[in-house]
Amino acid sequence: MAKEYLDIDTLKYLLYDVHSLEDVLQYERFQDHDLGSVDMFVDSVKEFSDRELFPYFKEMDENPAHYKDGTVMVHKQVDVMMKKGGEMGLIAAPFDYKDGGLQLPSMAYTSTAYILDAANNHLPGYAGLTLGSAELIAHFANEELNATYVPKMLAGEWAGTMCLTEPQAGSSLSDITTKAIPTEGGFYKINGQKIFISGGDTQYAENIIHLVLARIEGAPAGTKGISLFVVPKNRPDTDGNLNYNDVTTVADFQKMGQRGYCTTHLGFGDKDDCRGWLVGEPHQGLKYMFLMMNGARIAVGRGAAAIAMAAYQASLEYANERPQGRKLTSTGKKNPDENQSLIIEHPDVRRMLLLQKAIAEASLSLVLLASRYQDIKQATKDEGERTKYHLLLEMIIPIVKTFPSEAGAVAVNNGVQVLGGYGFCSDFILQQYYRDIRISAIYEGTTGIQSQDLLGRKIAMENGKALELLAAEIMATITAASAYDDLKPYAGMLGAKLKLSQEVLAHLMPFAQKGDYERYLADANLFMEFMSIVVISWLWLDMAIKAKQSLLKGDTKYSEAFYESKIHTMRFYFKYELPKTTGLAESLMNSEVLTIKTNKEVFV
Amino acid sequence: MAKEYLDIDTLKYLLYDVHSLEDVLQYERFQDHDLGSVDMFVDSVKEFSDRELFPYFKEMDENPAHYKDGTVMVHKQVDVMMKKGGEMGLIAAPFDYKDGGLQLPSMAYTSTAYILDAANNHLPGYAGLTLGSAELIAHFANEELNATYVPKMLAGEWAGTMCLTEPQAGSSLSDITTKAIPTEGGFYKINGQKIFISGGDTQYAENIIHLVLARIEGAPAGTKGISLFVVPKNRPDTDGNLNYNDVTTVADFQKMGQRGYCTTHLGFGDKDDCRGWLVGEPHQGLKYMFLMMNGARIAVGRGAAAIAMAAYQASLEYANERPQGRKLTSTGKKNPDENQSLIIEHPDVRRMLLLQKAIAEASLSLVLLASRYQDIKQATKDEGERTKYHLLLEMIIPIVKTFPSEAGAVAVNNGVQVLGGYGFCSDFILQQYYRDIRISAIYEGTTGIQSQDLLGRKIAMENGKALELLAAEIMATITAASAYDDLKPYAGMLGAKLKLSQEVLAHLMPFAQKGDYERYLADANLFMEFMSIVVISWLWLDMAIKAKQSLLKGDTKYSEAFYESKIHTMRFYFKYELPKTTGLAESLMNSEVLTIKTNKEVFV
Repeated sequence: MAKEYLDIDTLKYLLYDVHSLEDVLQYERFQDHDLGSVDMFVDSVKEFSDRELFPYFKEMDENPAHYKDGTVMVHKQVDVMMKKGGEMGLIAAPFDYKDGGLQLPSMAYTSTAYILDAANNHLPGYAGLTLGSAELIAHFANEELNATYVPKMLAGEWAGTMCLTEPQAGSSLSDITTKAIPTEGGFYKINGQKIFISGGDTQYAENIIHLVLARIEGAPAGTKGISLFVVPKNRPDTDGNLNYNDVTTVADFQKMGQRGYCTTHLGFGDKDDCRGWLVGEPHQGLKYMFLMMNGARIAVGRGAAAIAMAAYQASLEYANERPQGRKLTSTGKKNPDENQSLIIEHPDVRRMLLLQKAIAEASLSLVLLASRYQDIKQATKDEGERTKYHLLLEMIIPIVKTFPSEAGAVAVNNGVQVLGGYGFCSDFILQQYYRDIRISAIYEGTTGIQSQDLLGRKIAMENGKALELLAAEIMATITAASAYDDLKPYAGMLGAKLKLSQEVLAHLMPFAQKGDYERYLADANLFMEFMSIVVISWLWLDMAIKAKQSLLKGDTKYSEAFYESKIHTMRFYFKYELPKTTGLAESLMNSEVLTIKTNKEVFV
Repeated sequence: MAKEYLDIDTLKYLLYDVHSLEDVLQYERFQDHDLGSVDMFVDSVKEFSDRELFPYFKEMDENPAHYKDGTVMVHKQVDVMMKKGGEMGLIAAPFDYKDGGLQLPSMAYTSTAYILDAANNHLPGYAGLTLGSAELIAHFANEELNATYVPKMLAGEWAGTMCLTEPQAGSSLSDITTKAIPTEGGFYKINGQKIFISGGDTQYAENIIHLVLARIEGAPAGTKGISLFVVPKNRPDTDGNLNYNDVTTVADFQKMGQRGYCTTHLGFGDKDDCRGWLVGEPHQGLKYMFLMMNGARIAVGRGAAAIAMAAYQASLEYANERPQGRKLTSTGKKNPDENQSLIIEHPDVRRMLLLQKAIAEASLSLVLLASRYQDIKQATKDEGERTKYHLLLEMIIPIVKTFPSEAGAVAVNNGVQVLGGYGFCSDFILQQYYRDIRISAIYEGTTGIQSQDLLGRKIAMENGKALELLAAEIMATITAASAYDDLKPYAGMLGAKLKLSQEVLAHLMPFAQKGDYERYLADANLFMEFMSIVVISWLWLDMAIKAKQSLLKGDTKYSEAFYESKIHTMRFYFKYELPKTTGLAESLMNSEVLTIKTNKEVFV
């Protein structure tokens, strides 16, 4: 195991200095918090993670959660995560005071959840899904459901899950067939099967509250006929006793990674005695679910960003300690009488480490930016400001989910390579990060689905308003960077790529206008990669400006080397990653149609 | 498990039609073979793999090889691979008649080994390393060592290994410290530790013959003082009895993938009774080892190509069977009353499948091309021809090792994504391919080392002669393609990229000329990626020409759809992959120096 799993300085730098939590704390909603109180909370979560999460990371992989006698046996730290995490406010933090929460800004909550993820990505999901499902109840369900479930969930006593996927439907939610039959008793009878349910059952949970998408008898086909139900594993009666609610743990899924985070197959109503309570209005289930989906997608991006960071720390530690090989002399040979170099001295190893650093830190910056947008959107009383940040958030969400997941996997892959043969060995931790992070591009809408969302919905949103707002933010950074001689060339490079993105869209748009959406969206994944690189370059340029300003002011909060390293990493990203947009644009503007099905069989 | 693990038609098409085994069979060395006899051999290996390898692929992962009581317990099919494989000639095939071999062309041998790899990549290494170490003895050792070891090794009765890596040295062979002390008895006493020894011990092997790099007492430091020894686990006496030779299996390495292929830590001479016999001349060990290294590097590329193919087959099968989602209509929405589509009908899934197909098939083509070069080099009696093919082989070897390993991992990653959540689940086979293939970029010289070899040695080889020869081959294909109207545009694209490669080299060369090798080689990995894409585009263009010719001639050996699919996949590679060279060239010609160590600390 490595000694460290994150760079707390960079986390705090991004939270306080780059994305200025202080600005957000000005809003009335957050008036009871200040930088000092947030910082204490962050430190306490780091300390909790050091003690209760990180030391168990490897053993949770080696002793995976597993199905046994109708339940799922998980590691004992799952109980600690839920109960102690609940006590610490790790589930309740972002909730309103009226729901028992702390009204902590999402930026601050996200920072703490990121620490948990980096320490041990197998654990925070149990709390995170409980938070997400409690949020659905708090926002959309009636008072009675709220009072019954939310307090116990926020305390970590009862867990929560989201039940969307069914065996025959996969990502296609319009094909959900789980049934809800109205009764006289104010509840529905639920019947159906759900798969891939994270945290679906554990031996520790007194109760698990499932938020289930189902179709009320007679509802229309497709996504319009889907409703949302609260379906507890055990239903509380008026005296607070729990009665089994006919929710069966059918099996679990054993996985390549994140093996301590259980994934289950649940059956509802095998004995026709499973009761569900409608959340909000009928047929609005998918809408509710998707109103909460941004949080879930930020959480996936955050988790991937954290794994990439932890893997970077582990490979950096190895590179700093491992002697091997020698520097090339001016004859192109090595001198065997010289001492061996540490591998961190080899340019190729430095390239792999800088790539990891560039991806891991920018992924965190991106996740915090999304949280900032979320905070302002939620806290502002200015309608115009709310609309602006709503649109900015919607615009970047698919990238927030996807970039850390996809580029994060590339970063971890480079971390494995830094260790050479040891990277492949189970005694070293890199291979676990490599396996764990692979789920991120699948969770909560695959990269394909996010890319269709980006190009198909977000770009066109409100006649392109969301994209315009994002472009204006990027332009503002380009303008700011141009004021510094040594940042100006990078501002110019980013400006050119932003312009290129418009050319790409000008090439694609006519297909949508003609109604040929299949053609318009066929290469959405490439567009996602293109836009992600532009957005990440923007965030690096922004970080470089702020570091530059600190250097000029002689800030001593962090070392000069710290600020310089941010500028150096920006330059790295601009040299090694930003140019990829050129090739992507070439592909995107190539008119050959090769991936749309025709009568010609191509898979022979 | 999937039903199929390779596309035998494409294998035969590449072997017989594209790379024309027939040409190679004209050489006297191969006169006892003909297309019919080779084809029977290929079919018998496919049948053997279907029966003895593929069915055990998953269980070998789930029950990894493991250290127990001083030996390593491996799956029973290891014994079948060695003994039956030995009987079938799978170890002896490429050897000279005089050494007990079949003088089978390397192209044919490689095709059969590829089938084994695709069926179950945990098994062929046991035979492959036995082949490699027997080859070292056959080529460089004296008659006595030959007679003692080679026949039993070719028969699969005794196994063989290569012992290079030591704990303190890693990839840096100049730091090897294993000692060899001369004795009066014609042997040396060996003392040292070797790690990462593949196939280093099994409960089935009557004897294991280690080819060990060690330093004779008093030898110079660095790579020049290294000698090669035959060190059997048990030494045969003159009566043929085996006596334990003080080779200890200290431990094994548990790994993320290829878990049925054991990796061991061996100790030599713990009790000062380990005898080694010098192979060839003293201090020539590394030279001998590297003369055989091309074979080992082709083998790694072949294995990765095979895993990519097997993963492609498994994800293709899934995509052809799994209904999910619907086609987009002209309003950009889906109609829920329509039947679900098979996922293979979605453009994004087709893109992921075509990418896999493009990488997997071209990787195989590349490996067969290298084998073809090897065959001609070995069989020709024309000195000029021998030099030509020697240089061509040297030139492409680092790419043959690297492209299938790196791009193959990308292909498998896309295979996982085609399955969505199921891709991450242990019940499905994709996740195993994902883990298995990851070692390929590390084995036998990491991608970093291969890239330094390509740019640092091969490009400059014989004053650029090797590169000139390769460029001439590519130009010949460009010229041939230009004769067909519908291939001409692709010929033009490839020509432009070949020219771009010269610009990149013109930018880099001055650094080498000034003796700044660190700078010259700092971005060798990017150059590797650049050249790999150019070479693979060339191979696709070549395949497209041959398919086009068959279509024009009305060949009925394969279906029209089969030939068309080759042209389609070429077009896919040119649209989606070739443009990446533009961005790579941008990075390679960017003059910022960011990865060479200076006094400025960047990892803060």
